[in-house]
Amino acid sequence: MSELRRDPIGGRWVIVDTDHPNKPEDYEYEPQIYKGGNCPFCYGNETQTPPEIEAIREPGTLPNTPGWQVRVVPNKFPALQIEGDLDRHGVGMYDMTNGVGAHEVCIETPYHEKDICDLTQGEIENFIGMYCRRINDLIKDKRFKYVMLFKNFGASAGASLEHPHTQLIALPMVPKNVAEEIRGAHEYFEYRERCIFCDIIRQETQEKERIVVENKYFLAFCPFVSRFPFELWIMPKKHNGKFCHMPPEEVPALAAILREIILRLKHIFPHLPYNFILHSSPINGDASGDGYHWHIEFMPKLTRVAGFEWGSGFYVVATPPELAAKYLREVPQDAIK
Amino acid sequence: MSELRRDPIGGRWVIVDTDHPNKPEDYEYEPQIYKGGNCPFCYGNETQTPPEIEAIREPGTLPNTPGWQVRVVPNKFPALQIEGDLDRHGVGMYDMTNGVGAHEVCIETPYHEKDICDLTQGEIENFIGMYCRRINDLIKDKRFKYVMLFKNFGASAGASLEHPHTQLIALPMVPKNVAEEIRGAHEYFEYRERCIFCDIIRQETQEKERIVVENKYFLAFCPFVSRFPFELWIMPKKHNGKFCHMPPEEVPALAAILREIILRLKHIFPHLPYNFILHSSPINGDASGDGYHWHIEFMPKLTRVAGFEWGSGFYVVATPPELAAKYLREVPQDAIK
Repeated sequence: MSELRRDPIGGRWVIVDTDHPNKPEDYEYEPQIYKGGNCPFCYGNETQTPPEIEAIREPGTLPNTPGWQVRVVPNKFPALQIEGDLDRHGVGMYDMTNGVGAHEVCIETPYHEKDICDLTQGEIENFIGMYCRRINDLIKDKRFKYVMLFKNFGASAGASLEHPHTQLIALPMVPKNVAEEIRGAHEYFEYRERCIFCDIIRQETQEKERIVVENKYFLAFCPFVSRFPFELWIMPKKHNGKFCHMPPEEVPALAAILREIILRLKHIFPHLPYNFILHSSPINGDASGDGYHWHIEFMPKLTRVAGFEWGSGFYVVATPPELAAKYLREVPQDAIK
Repeated sequence: MSELRRDPIGGRWVIVDTDHPNKPEDYEYEPQIYKGGNCPFCYGNETQTPPEIEAIREPGTLPNTPGWQVRVVPNKFPALQIEGDLDRHGVGMYDMTNGVGAHEVCIETPYHEKDICDLTQGEIENFIGMYCRRINDLIKDKRFKYVMLFKNFGASAGASLEHPHTQLIALPMVPKNVAEEIRGAHEYFEYRERCIFCDIIRQETQEKERIVVENKYFLAFCPFVSRFPFELWIMPKKHNGKFCHMPPEEVPALAAILREIILRLKHIFPHLPYNFILHSSPINGDASGDGYHWHIEFMPKLTRVAGFEWGSGFYVVATPPELAAKYLREVPQDAIK
């Protein structure tokens, strides 16, 4: 029989098929492929993007020329625009505002066909550092309330360009799902005077069966209430509300664990498309305490979300997280070098 | 510049691209195709499904034989199982229960390749009547708190079988998204002493620009806060919380409007995959009053939902609903006969 599990943060229920769970080979996903063609994010094509905002470059090279390792540019087709003041008003019973915000793209590598796991430790640390710097820069703008950082890798995960990149969207409001997560975490804190994420780390560390990999500073595990098969959360072990307050000594550990989980996943699912999303405390949220704890939610794109999920916010997961973690732990050591 | 719009029911914000909106030809969707092969839902294959629960049949024909027009069977691979009592308990800080529920499939036509718009008015009325009867039957079970009815049409909309069918899942809890919608509607009712959905109908009827089609009993419109391009809501004009309390005279009007919106959509988007979801008051919710109002949310599957949407609950809609409604209204009359 299947199990119904309730997310302790947001109160969402999921159905977990513990009775006839899917094995990895049961998933018919759309593999991520490189078709090639002209790419505005490739080395040498720097003039095809809007002028760069920031880059990690060889000394002496000019902006918008080759010589870069990580490059941040405005999105050519931004969902929101940087100019203007917020003008919130009603339209009859409806509410609206003009689309003020920022929409940037972080190109993580000059190489078109290198996924994160194909980069060196140092290259990954570089773009993680860039994520932090861009968020720290965007939050200086008083119009913004939240910076969303997310990666779509592969067409079926929603990527419109093949070249590896991550998007940052600065918003003039805290999005609903984020606000709910924060509210849930605060309610738990009010009730127990403990951070819910720290409690999750404690329980996962005790039970062990959902842990995939850990190092000194980070834990990567399949959450008890996964919404997607082989979903993984990467969480700092030490309580910290904001990603961009991460102590420098944690960056190499984050780079290593991010690389390793992608290697493990791709060993089981070759050419896996995926999304990941940074969850961090809002700009004006308190930084250190009161229950929020930054983390990365990593979602392999193995299934299509259908009507039931849309209608209900109720997910059906065909591989229990305990089993997914076991498959991921059992990936041979030489596949994750 | 784009607009940010706030859903008055749930408080969700969406980004609507009013500046460079997508035209229909800009969407690269995956067309729904029939590959054929053996189909357990086809006429003559009745023994390939679990024994039928209910059917509309020619007089004198036996269950699980040919002679049917609409047929309801248990899902062969149910997400939840009908036997057993609920056993809710904690696992450390987590909450769970066993997977008690019902999971049925309504096969709307014996014809493998007939979408709803290819059926006659009478055939559509038949399966709408069957939806009502199945919900009325399932709600007699005191373990259930909500019956979710939804249709996935086409592989990219999550359908695992090609043959047209709709699923019903009876759940031992009210799903999160439904509970939020009901809470939002009740809060509006508390504040204004009016149904928010009735107010939406009033504003849409006055402004007209988002209406696609209406008849005596129903309105079909592109909601001001669409989450998906060409999203459509079908709503009864007369206040009514529960779908299965629909007066009999409204059924033909619902059949006609459902058929017409699919014809209009498919004229613009041939072989369109789609989802629709019935939103109705929970089993134990009050039926007539206090702010809930049943409706169908119809979602063409034109785009892939990516990381940003998952992370934020914040949707980007590339065609404003005003423009989508205009395209749909302008479909020539002979395409919707």
